[in-house]
Amino acid sequence: MRRVLVLGTGMIGTSVALALRQVGIHVGLFDRDAHSVAEAVRMGAGAASRAADPPADLVIIATPPSTVAEVLRAAQDRGLGAVYTDVASTKARLVSDAELAGCDLSSFVPGHPLAGTELSGPRAARADLFAGRPWVLCPLPATRLEPVRVVTELITACGAEIRLLSPRTHDRFVAAVSHAPHVVSAALAARFADPDDHMLALVGRGLQDTTRIATSPPGLWCDILAHNAGAVAAELEAVARDLTAAAAALRGADRADGGALADLLARGNRGREHIVAAEPARWATHHFVASNSPVGTA
Amino acid sequence: MRRVLVLGTGMIGTSVALALRQVGIHVGLFDRDAHSVAEAVRMGAGAASRAADPPADLVIIATPPSTVAEVLRAAQDRGLGAVYTDVASTKARLVSDAELAGCDLSSFVPGHPLAGTELSGPRAARADLFAGRPWVLCPLPATRLEPVRVVTELITACGAEIRLLSPRTHDRFVAAVSHAPHVVSAALAARFADPDDHMLALVGRGLQDTTRIATSPPGLWCDILAHNAGAVAAELEAVARDLTAAAAALRGADRADGGALADLLARGNRGREHIVAAEPARWATHHFVASNSPVGTA
Repeated sequence: MRRVLVLGTGMIGTSVALALRQVGIHVGLFDRDAHSVAEAVRMGAGAASRAADPPADLVIIATPPSTVAEVLRAAQDRGLGAVYTDVASTKARLVSDAELAGCDLSSFVPGHPLAGTELSGPRAARADLFAGRPWVLCPLPATRLEPVRVVTELITACGAEIRLLSPRTHDRFVAAVSHAPHVVSAALAARFADPDDHMLALVGRGLQDTTRIATSPPGLWCDILAHNAGAVAAELEAVARDLTAAAAALRGADRADGGALADLLARGNRGREHIVAAEPARWATHHFVASNSPVGTA
Repeated sequence: MRRVLVLGTGMIGTSVALALRQVGIHVGLFDRDAHSVAEAVRMGAGAASRAADPPADLVIIATPPSTVAEVLRAAQDRGLGAVYTDVASTKARLVSDAELAGCDLSSFVPGHPLAGTELSGPRAARADLFAGRPWVLCPLPATRLEPVRVVTELITACGAEIRLLSPRTHDRFVAAVSHAPHVVSAALAARFADPDDHMLALVGRGLQDTTRIATSPPGLWCDILAHNAGAVAAELEAVARDLTAAAAALRGADRADGGALADLLARGNRGREHIVAAEPARWATHHFVASNSPVGTA
């Protein structure tokens, strides 16, 4: 892997480019927004791609989920590279979209680095964004071994850890870990869309932390959520059920008898213990069997 | 204010005691749990109270909301102090409980420091817990001026800022800013009460931050929520409505047409902007007119 082409210079695409530049790889950059490319170039993420560039060893598609299939098809039609991957946070629908679009799936390795912040755009990019973070690959039955090897090299260069999951399992997990929490955080923040100043004066770290990811850009997130609609809807319905039951317990209980509310808080405590135990510091030493043999399942 | 008695040596009571010790005030400590008192004493929060102690200038009741009225009544019956305040996070029901219990309301100034963490117990206490934070006072029509002056001195000694609110307004604001977010955070964390290890491996900072306050002790929080039931239930119902509408939009939309989901994310963005603008750094310079004239409304 000597030449990489990054299509889409948002926060994730530019961060991958910055990480690759640090290990001396030649990076070409493209985005339909020329200002975004210029900003990424200015940050040292690589050079703007040109029509005369030779084919890349790896093309990284870093555009919103709903656009990946068409971008992949166009890139393959033009022969922009030998191997293709993406970084979108949904996988099952994207893969079927790619199949329907007539893409060559033998050279495509669907991927998803689980990293990012509530910010967006090239200026939010960081070379170390993926260090110690999981990077899911969903190799398809049609995927050849060599493309998987090349993408593994990419992930290693970014300092991330490979996890292998099927597209459906990936989407279900990510709905719970990331997509639904974004919507819940937005619903909490939405209560302050038109706030009383005296109420705002009482805001503390609890509300600051629970609403941090409500800063995320709505356009991109509508796209992500619509691409993982069923799994996200199921998570949101489960949370709404718990909140409705807690509210009903409060309405009924002049004297708190516990019940649904106490049960919810206890389950919350238990879940939080698991979440704390999964903290980033542990990722570096906590490997799954699959982590070291990505090619084995391809 | 030279002698203060703190009833209840949990995180808040012990933190107040530590702050008062730093300005040389004599602090007596009581808790029905002797181990908790011993721990607070060991941390330098004061001395265990004794039957022979002279009456305190100020008695601070730092017990769960549902117990404040009876503790106040018992303390006043025994003549433990000249002035009384509390630190509970609910106010309206507590005040009517105190009235019903036959407490002397002329020497009682209901209060609520908006500070704390997801931790509990004396070992989680910090002398600077209240620095720069709002501390709400809800003086009653019956409250005399001198008790308000004494409690103002307490708040100043703790480095906090006085806010004056009616009990009902306080409860409504706190339901939105603190109580409902605790339940929502618990509902999010509860999805991980019995998690898949491979799913946990994907956990990132977004979920860590949104669920931090789900660590809070369920017993104390059931008590708090039951004491502010109507206002909290209304907030939870509003959040549940938004989540249910978002789920329905996802279920119905093969192609994302935006609608309810896009609207929710946009409102979340707007609310988050207000929440960020209310960040702690601003509290130090952002005074309301009421802040400097607490006695004026007593």
